[in-house]
Amino acid sequence: MNLRKRIEESGRIKSDLFQKDFLLTWEKSEKDLRLILEVAGILKEMREQNISSKVFDSGLAVSVFRDKSTRTRFSYASAANLLGLAVQDMDEQKSQIAHGETVRETANMISFLSDFIGIRDDIFLGEGNKYMREVGQALDEGYEKGVLPSRPGIVNLQCDMDHPTQSMADLLHLKNHFGSLDKLQGKKIVMSWAYSPSYGKPLSVPQGIIALMSRFGMNIELAYPEGYGLIPEIIELTKINTIKSGGTFSVSHSMEESVIDADIVYPKSWAPYHIMQQRTKLLKTADKNGLAELEKTCLTQNAHFKHWEYNNQKMRLTKNQDALYMHCMPADISGVSCKEGEVSADVFEKYRILTYREAGYKPYIIAAMMLGNMFEDPGKILTGILNRNIKRVGI
Amino acid sequence: MNLRKRIEESGRIKSDLFQKDFLLTWEKSEKDLRLILEVAGILKEMREQNISSKVFDSGLAVSVFRDKSTRTRFSYASAANLLGLAVQDMDEQKSQIAHGETVRETANMISFLSDFIGIRDDIFLGEGNKYMREVGQALDEGYEKGVLPSRPGIVNLQCDMDHPTQSMADLLHLKNHFGSLDKLQGKKIVMSWAYSPSYGKPLSVPQGIIALMSRFGMNIELAYPEGYGLIPEIIELTKINTIKSGGTFSVSHSMEESVIDADIVYPKSWAPYHIMQQRTKLLKTADKNGLAELEKTCLTQNAHFKHWEYNNQKMRLTKNQDALYMHCMPADISGVSCKEGEVSADVFEKYRILTYREAGYKPYIIAAMMLGNMFEDPGKILTGILNRNIKRVGI
Amino acid sequence: MNLRKRIEESGRIKSDLFQKDFLLTWEKSEKDLRLILEVAGILKEMREQNISSKVFDSGLAVSVFRDKSTRTRFSYASAANLLGLAVQDMDEQKSQIAHGETVRETANMISFLSDFIGIRDDIFLGEGNKYMREVGQALDEGYEKGVLPSRPGIVNLQCDMDHPTQSMADLLHLKNHFGSLDKLQGKKIVMSWAYSPSYGKPLSVPQGIIALMSRFGMNIELAYPEGYGLIPEIIELTKINTIKSGGTFSVSHSMEESVIDADIVYPKSWAPYHIMQQRTKLLKTADKNGLAELEKTCLTQNAHFKHWEYNNQKMRLTKNQDALYMHCMPADISGVSCKEGEVSADVFEKYRILTYREAGYKPYIIAAMMLGNMFEDPGKILTGILNRNIKRVGI
Repeated sequence: MNLRKRIEESGRIKSDLFQKDFLLTWEKSEKDLRLILEVAGILKEMREQNISSKVFDSGLAVSVFRDKSTRTRFSYASAANLLGLAVQDMDEQKSQIAHGETVRETANMISFLSDFIGIRDDIFLGEGNKYMREVGQALDEGYEKGVLPSRPGIVNLQCDMDHPTQSMADLLHLKNHFGSLDKLQGKKIVMSWAYSPSYGKPLSVPQGIIALMSRFGMNIELAYPEGYGLIPEIIELTKINTIKSGGTFSVSHSMEESVIDADIVYPKSWAPYHIMQQRTKLLKTADKNGLAELEKTCLTQNAHFKHWEYNNQKMRLTKNQDALYMHCMPADISGVSCKEGEVSADVFEKYRILTYREAGYKPYIIAAMMLGNMFEDPGKILTGILNRNIKRVGI
Repeated sequence: MNLRKRIEESGRIKSDLFQKDFLLTWEKSEKDLRLILEVAGILKEMREQNISSKVFDSGLAVSVFRDKSTRTRFSYASAANLLGLAVQDMDEQKSQIAHGETVRETANMISFLSDFIGIRDDIFLGEGNKYMREVGQALDEGYEKGVLPSRPGIVNLQCDMDHPTQSMADLLHLKNHFGSLDKLQGKKIVMSWAYSPSYGKPLSVPQGIIALMSRFGMNIELAYPEGYGLIPEIIELTKINTIKSGGTFSVSHSMEESVIDADIVYPKSWAPYHIMQQRTKLLKTADKNGLAELEKTCLTQNAHFKHWEYNNQKMRLTKNQDALYMHCMPADISGVSCKEGEVSADVFEKYRILTYREAGYKPYIIAAMMLGNMFEDPGKILTGILNRNIKRVGI
Repeated sequence: MNLRKRIEESGRIKSDLFQKDFLLTWEKSEKDLRLILEVAGILKEMREQNISSKVFDSGLAVSVFRDKSTRTRFSYASAANLLGLAVQDMDEQKSQIAHGETVRETANMISFLSDFIGIRDDIFLGEGNKYMREVGQALDEGYEKGVLPSRPGIVNLQCDMDHPTQSMADLLHLKNHFGSLDKLQGKKIVMSWAYSPSYGKPLSVPQGIIALMSRFGMNIELAYPEGYGLIPEIIELTKINTIKSGGTFSVSHSMEESVIDADIVYPKSWAPYHIMQQRTKLLKTADKNGLAELEKTCLTQNAHFKHWEYNNQKMRLTKNQDALYMHCMPADISGVSCKEGEVSADVFEKYRILTYREAGYKPYIIAAMMLGNMFEDPGKILTGILNRNIKRVGI
């Protein structure tokens, strides 16, 4: 389908993205999500056709990374640049920016000429998403009181609950891989815990995946060793989603059993919910001994589950012995990036390029979120981009 | 007044900003300062009307922060971006860039394609402003000898003597709050020391405030506990300013007495001048024990002045019990950001949004300084911006 | 010569730069090198004439600095900005990005919307250039497999073998200083080791200089204390170059003797090849004691050669007592940046401004490398820039 037609069709999707933050996929309507996928696809196509999609002549996209990041950092920077914004990092390093009063102030101080604030805050359970909302409320106040010329949009670049730029990129990958969103109906996706020699990995990816994929009629199987559960509320909403969308939801405590006849397998380590709760408490009180003790306990505990590796033997159990392997990267690959990990080297290698493709959607997803927030009628702005026809490279 | 008219009127101000560094407000004529306020206001209005004020198609604005900064960093980045420049940080961290030969060299090395260098150097008394001048001389030489295609302008982002982007933003805030610069005539502003649990805060804000506000006919009252004086030369020039402008200057050693009938109160902690002198010596010799000793002495000394908190009781003494509260942020707020601080929580809360508004002028002040430095006739360039009429956001 | 004519003439140089990485000057044809010099000169002239040479409406130039850098960092940022790209730093700090699998992955992850990757990796002998090629292969794969919309070009910002942006800037300096590339024929250039109180300086500058200058008919004299040799293969190719270009190559173990009748002297410290080999091994095993031991041995060894300082007495032996002094900066200047160093203060001062001029070519060299990589016909794009005639500054 040509670009103009795609834009026309996307224009028919009536969404509610305008001037709204993107904090959790489950706060967004299905139309919102569909529009973001469409706009992301269109922006990607424009980039490939050397059409500049700059819609900001100037402006800042602020990034606040409260945890390390390579992929998401570059995705955010790429998205901002694609639309014409300059990235300005807010480096909290050692500046001891606390919650409460200071969030209110800082949020405004960095926003006088900013259009977006992208935030990663995924370490403290019960905190990350809350923090983003505090920032949002501060920005609301600043805008209402005339301090800010406009209300910058917030993009959740991973919190304690969700990782929407990841899950939406994953959804776009699935849509393109299987041909359409409709074709996802009835597909079995296994979101499985997997062994990793590290500890304390956030829950946001598995939670984000099951909460999102369950809205498109997929059969979700969540597999993890007993004791490695996710936030209960998110399990509940996933169940409700599957009922509404005509999918199913089940929990398994065996990776082997879970992957039988799977269309998609997403093997990824995470820390158990109750451990993250303890860890958050210890982190807050800066209890070093407690943290060291907890890490030791957890690693010992994890070591019981080294057989939770996704490998050839398990792949052979999947649909056509060829379920689509997914990962948010970087994966812990046995014998490559660690001794024993989430996935065997041969299986990873088979799907390696596909994981790159998966990751490659994220910049466009973020750009689409920005476009949806900034323009009431994204279709109109995309048509404008097409009509003015400025080359991205060249004269 | 509409934008075109404002630009026309500002065009009548004959200034001497062209190709001059902005290092100290007291080196600038009143016309220079008035023009910067006007241009800043016009740029702010343009931003609010979605008019792009980009006047650089490419170019770099270098930043050199020799001390931590959030507000000024974002203001500088915002100003640069507003005009079309990309920010490039010069990170001296661990690179041990010394004074003398190396300043000369480095100044040129970072300037081959740069249009501005913004510098914060506020820790060593007697050094920061001197350093900026060394950089300036090196740039002069590089430009004269044909090494640099143009002479980058320097913007003082805070030194040991002055904080001109802060004081000018504060002045614009006062101008807008009270209606005009003329209405500042006869207004009483109290620049008061206030208690803070930290030590070693620079003198540049109180010095910058009294030296600037004294030029517009204000009645300046400088209040501090005995022993907490500022650089004597700046006190002297403040006195001269008030005589010329028809204002007054007085010193008080009681916060209570000073704020009586005040129109404006600016309560802010700083380290005593003679302590900063000692501290500079100790910092230079990296005398850790000496510094620890000095800090201890100072904090003990400060603790005698915990009653130097601006609170309701003091506010009730001011004009209409409602003097405008000002602060360069972040303020030490009692019971919020510290146990006992510069200002009580209720008073701060009353003026909180106004302090945000105050801070929001800084990006435009910096952009105006840049525009004044770069273009001989800022009015002409502003008219050009208006006539070409490019949207900042949208197509 | 006016710009249009210069562009026309440069258009006649048939090069092979299009879509090729720039990793080593000796992989490039003489025409490639000549074209880069021409394009760099044209871009510099355009900048001086306030002509915007932006050819990217958006796009990222990634930088990966695995070693500290000021000059090259700013040069890269300036080049990117000149052409319209935003710089995005890839900060590997603590992220332990290893070779092998992870390079493949990371290279793709940072490249989805990137146009260039500039890499400095000069610490490990036998590694830096290899690493760049690994990145290149990963990008090839990503592009071929449809993961990347285009293949980002790689610019070597210094490796263990070569420092091509430095040596090409130096060559442009020589071309302009002596009038033309042809006039370099028969000129004597002394690339001399010099004493420095530090240890472990990379070999890439001396190697890059002799390997490049030997292609333009220069008489190369490489001077160093016995035991301070360079990578043997690069010595070999330098010899072959001089034979082809009609120059000469000789090695001397006396700075005094080497500089006799020299037209150009480039005195610069480096670590001996075999020491760098040992150091690489120790660094890889993180052998702290071994490294401390090696440093001690080396510094003791270096101290025997404090008389390898380029000073007035030696300068008097050169052609007209006035050989052009060159340095990649920062130089260790005796009595200025160190007690005893590579060059005496008076000799450095005499040529100081010339060393700034030398350094000033680097941004344009990098921009020319980018232009050559991105456009099949750089002459056409330069003509396009001239014809559209957009001001860099102003309206």
